[in-house]
Amino acid sequence: MEEEQKTRITIDIYGQPYTIIGTDSSAHVRQVATIVDERMRELSVRNPYLDTTKVAVLTAVNSVHDYLKLEAEKEFLEEELKKLKG
Amino acid sequence: MEEEQKTRITIDIYGQPYTIIGTDSSAHVRQVATIVDERMRELSVRNPYLDTTKVAVLTAVNSVHDYLKLEAEKEFLEEELKKLKG
Repeated sequence: MEEEQKTRITIDIYGQPYTIIGTDSSAHVRQVATIVDERMRELSVRNPYLDTTKVAVLTAVNSVHDYLKLEAEKEFLEEELKKLKG
Repeated sequence: MEEEQKTRITIDIYGQPYTIIGTDSSAHVRQVATIVDERMRELSVRNPYLDTTKVAVLTAVNSVHDYLKLEAEKEFLEEELKKLKG
């Protein structure tokens, strides 16, 4: 079994550095970081009274909400495919 | 045009209350909150030196990562469907 190559990437989110260790490409990790940073900044502009922790938690809430929505859309497509193939 | 009914739901994440205003069902909002709360607690157990803001930011990072992965899978299914439908 080949060992997976782990990389160590430092990214900046909302003015703080984070070191991400994993097997994803640097480009992917940077894309994710940019999305989180942008979402946090947008949320903070709309809710200027929120502290950084709350901005981060609500960004996680929005991201999980989007994930569940997309998951439902994917399940619908899987059903469609099953019908067409079956 | 009918006006959308906005609801106000208070949820608890990582020991803090958050008020979510939107058109989603209470059950959906609670499901999202439970997922974020669990992910934050898991991340915190694995990285006990992280403060709450970092735990929240990294939970958002993981959620966006999962979203992008799922989006690629959904795009693949859409291509499959397109081929099958001709």
